[in-house]
Amino acid sequence: MEKLGANPANSIPLTPLGFLERAATVYGDCPSVVYHDTVFTWSQTFRRCLRLASALVSLGISRRDVVSVLLPNVPAMYEAHFGVPMSGAVLNSVNTRLDARTVSVLLRHSGSKLVLVDPALLPVLDDALRLLPTGHPAPRVVVVEDPHEKELPSTPATALTTYERLLETGDPEFAWVRPESEWDPIVLNYTSGTTSAPKGVVHCHRGIYLVALDSLVTWSVPERPTYLWTLPMFHSNGWSFPWGMAVVGGTNVCLRRVDAGEVYNLIAERGVTHLCCAPVVLNMLANAPEGVRKPLPRKVRIMTAGSPPPAAVLYRAEAVGFDVTHGFGMTETGAVVLSCAWKGEWDRLPASERARLKARQGVRTPGMAEVDIVDGETGRSVPRDGATMGEIVLRGACVTLGYYKDGEATRAAIREDGWLYTGDVGVMHPDGYLEIRDRSKDVIISGGENISSVEVESVLYGHPAVNEAAVVARPDEFWGETPCAFVSLKDGAPATTTAAEVIAWSRERMPGYMVPKTVVFQGELPKTSTGKIQKNVLRKLAKEMGPTRRGVVGSSKM
Amino acid sequence: MEKLGANPANSIPLTPLGFLERAATVYGDCPSVVYHDTVFTWSQTFRRCLRLASALVSLGISRRDVVSVLLPNVPAMYEAHFGVPMSGAVLNSVNTRLDARTVSVLLRHSGSKLVLVDPALLPVLDDALRLLPTGHPAPRVVVVEDPHEKELPSTPATALTTYERLLETGDPEFAWVRPESEWDPIVLNYTSGTTSAPKGVVHCHRGIYLVALDSLVTWSVPERPTYLWTLPMFHSNGWSFPWGMAVVGGTNVCLRRVDAGEVYNLIAERGVTHLCCAPVVLNMLANAPEGVRKPLPRKVRIMTAGSPPPAAVLYRAEAVGFDVTHGFGMTETGAVVLSCAWKGEWDRLPASERARLKARQGVRTPGMAEVDIVDGETGRSVPRDGATMGEIVLRGACVTLGYYKDGEATRAAIREDGWLYTGDVGVMHPDGYLEIRDRSKDVIISGGENISSVEVESVLYGHPAVNEAAVVARPDEFWGETPCAFVSLKDGAPATTTAAEVIAWSRERMPGYMVPKTVVFQGELPKTSTGKIQKNVLRKLAKEMGPTRRGVVGSSKM
Repeated sequence: MEKLGANPANSIPLTPLGFLERAATVYGDCPSVVYHDTVFTWSQTFRRCLRLASALVSLGISRRDVVSVLLPNVPAMYEAHFGVPMSGAVLNSVNTRLDARTVSVLLRHSGSKLVLVDPALLPVLDDALRLLPTGHPAPRVVVVEDPHEKELPSTPATALTTYERLLETGDPEFAWVRPESEWDPIVLNYTSGTTSAPKGVVHCHRGIYLVALDSLVTWSVPERPTYLWTLPMFHSNGWSFPWGMAVVGGTNVCLRRVDAGEVYNLIAERGVTHLCCAPVVLNMLANAPEGVRKPLPRKVRIMTAGSPPPAAVLYRAEAVGFDVTHGFGMTETGAVVLSCAWKGEWDRLPASERARLKARQGVRTPGMAEVDIVDGETGRSVPRDGATMGEIVLRGACVTLGYYKDGEATRAAIREDGWLYTGDVGVMHPDGYLEIRDRSKDVIISGGENISSVEVESVLYGHPAVNEAAVVARPDEFWGETPCAFVSLKDGAPATTTAAEVIAWSRERMPGYMVPKTVVFQGELPKTSTGKIQKNVLRKLAKEMGPTRRGVVGSSKM
Repeated sequence: MEKLGANPANSIPLTPLGFLERAATVYGDCPSVVYHDTVFTWSQTFRRCLRLASALVSLGISRRDVVSVLLPNVPAMYEAHFGVPMSGAVLNSVNTRLDARTVSVLLRHSGSKLVLVDPALLPVLDDALRLLPTGHPAPRVVVVEDPHEKELPSTPATALTTYERLLETGDPEFAWVRPESEWDPIVLNYTSGTTSAPKGVVHCHRGIYLVALDSLVTWSVPERPTYLWTLPMFHSNGWSFPWGMAVVGGTNVCLRRVDAGEVYNLIAERGVTHLCCAPVVLNMLANAPEGVRKPLPRKVRIMTAGSPPPAAVLYRAEAVGFDVTHGFGMTETGAVVLSCAWKGEWDRLPASERARLKARQGVRTPGMAEVDIVDGETGRSVPRDGATMGEIVLRGACVTLGYYKDGEATRAAIREDGWLYTGDVGVMHPDGYLEIRDRSKDVIISGGENISSVEVESVLYGHPAVNEAAVVARPDEFWGETPCAFVSLKDGAPATTTAAEVIAWSRERMPGYMVPKTVVFQGELPKTSTGKIQKNVLRKLAKEMGPTRRGVVGSSKM
């Protein structure tokens, strides 16, 4: 058997791009992409993507060139996930919430050749282009006009063309460019690190093909779902579901901006069955006021990931009627690679206990090879005691090729021992389910005890008046650090909700050393462009408050 | 991006073996394998498979050694799909319906080191071992005793041990042997060609991992199905579902032999939701007499493949209440790789029309790269006209590594143009769905017209008195060949069902040149060990009848 191996028929590179051709055959007349009164079918989407690929090639885009998109969840954004790599190019999805300076850095770093841009983002792009260093070739600009939006800037004379005019120049029978190897790059996504410089995460055709199938199996997605695009597609390529929806012939309901009322309307009007979102959006949906929230006409499945959802948020979302699956993924893994796979026996537990179990990140998805939690010093697995913290490490086919032009960062994350080091700290429970306790840097060390800020936040979210909570370290003269909580309250929270009350309430629910010594009330917590709470900002605030002194608890209103 | 590629974290070999470890974590207390009153949980199955792997290693089995199984669908057969490759060995599933001579040929060709055998198959194995040439090292024999079966031969003194005693020697904490490369062999399956010598089809870990996930997505298998093992696991590894069931935590209901009454009983008692079977078994279930057939307590999904199912059989199965998916696969593709993906709009068609559409083999599964029908002479795609015949060719990750020790056969099937040539003849319909018309050798050429025997059979199955039909070529003095039909009738078929009546009935339903000139009634049609009708036997019979003469129609009762 030594002689048998890869051969011409079984070694054709794995790629998700073939999913679309099949969808056009099987689901040709079914809706593919819906946006207001625009409805495309799968055979139309296939031909539009071929036109896009063909037009890009005609413009001189070639294999491994980078094409950027600066788009909300409009049809062109969906099409770019197939059309751009079908030209041989690498798709670079840019976070639409970035400022011009950062966009400029990314365009320069990626060497982007062309940008598809939404009219609303033209001012940012214009500024970004102006900030490019002299002599740096500016990418060409194609404006994706949106007839459904009023008061958008009009296409400037400097733009090469509009998206629809570009498509008209393309050939709908174009023979799309297959990767030469399944390890060829398909996407380049910059991480929106809260502290460090953006890093360009590169994924290959093989990794995306596998994670797209894996995500469908993990979430048991049936044929022909109706999928609402609450999750920005620029966010880790919508956790692989742009490609996955072509596999199952789903209907992609586009959504320019997330608004609880609009989401509930679309669920009712479009027959939405599935959506993904970060916990912050889940919280928004679950806590939407009575009039905004509408009864769900059928079971709506939600996958939430991106940061650890507090158990209380999961509890409220289930109470509203959502069927929530909690997962964990990173830009570096392409999509969700851990999921809190549900056990039938848990159905019999009280709702609060169910939410607590579901708040765990869980087990690897079937497609991933291995996950573990290792001690930072010894590199050995931590005991399965639900208490000993260590770093979460992963290996499997969907792990990034590495960071673009950053060998040092690549070697720091992907080590010779075969693991991707996630930088997330967690514990392994006796049942083999893991739970994130913190980002390494978010651990608060108080009197020699490691405190997980996520754990403290998780309790605070259970307070009836708390809307959002974030806990960071505040310097302390005696303990070194103490937990400092930043809290936003719900509308109509009673006046009795004081710092002292929250602290007293916490004291009943966690060990003394974990109880926040400081509680700061804020209107809204500062967030990154992807909706993550900016702990670095809060850490700075906590530091500026100066050290707490033994026995003193503080509070302030900002 | 040239520098980025495979790295230590993303290049860990793809393998289906990891599915079991995950199942033990997620579905640990859920039933995995059920056989009469024996019920294993997933954590038990995991530990039993580790014991098996460990025990095999202790016996000296090492990487790439072949371990054979000669077993019906009992729990040990399921466990072998994980336990054998977890020792590093290659699993060779032997068709339990083969004669001693053929078994002997396979054991010799594969160089099998050990055989797990069912007591009922001991006599065949004993004879097979005696037929091995002098000096050929005989594989060791482990008997899988079955406490649920009475009157089985007892374990002979020559056997090494019994399966349960072997497991006792194994370590349930064994660190299973990972493949060194994802292209390493995992299974060796001999095809039961109806005419030619058996060929050893080898699949690798990568191919099986991918086709197992692909099959789950193709069939939209949800979590925790109850899967009835009507399909022999020795038949192309049960179309990959032994591995797939570990992904979704299904309950594997074992079944030693297929009997319509038993199948209906298990559907009712065990809550069966899914099963696979060849069309011949589908026919048996659909046509089971009133008392044997029981109302289905819920929707039962059936995947049928292996040979083209007549539309009439699909129609009857749906009428009984089964939800049938029709697919196509070969030993060389590991599992189903074409499936007649259903379109919602077809639901509105009359039942007979629905059955006709469903009888087509359809489109490639999402995991497969490409399928085409090519002209044998030019190698070019045939037109999508539903009429022009050509050979079906496939490419994709689950295509076999090749035939063991048979470079010539490998090169004949897997050509330099990157296609696996299936030997099946079909047409491409205008909607992109393909339909098998015949095995190349089964085409009847009559007066220069190519006649698909499958097409003629498909019409004959619609005759109310026909149970089974097979059509082959009979020599003809004028036309060269004419279609000759072998037919078995249903119990209680009316006496008016004569050859002349069947021919007249056919004449109303197909072009004149396709109408059988000869109709032979038989009690039962001869079948191969896998339940395929032995066309080679019938062809011989047709030849022995001598040539038909112009205008003469013949009939005989055998």
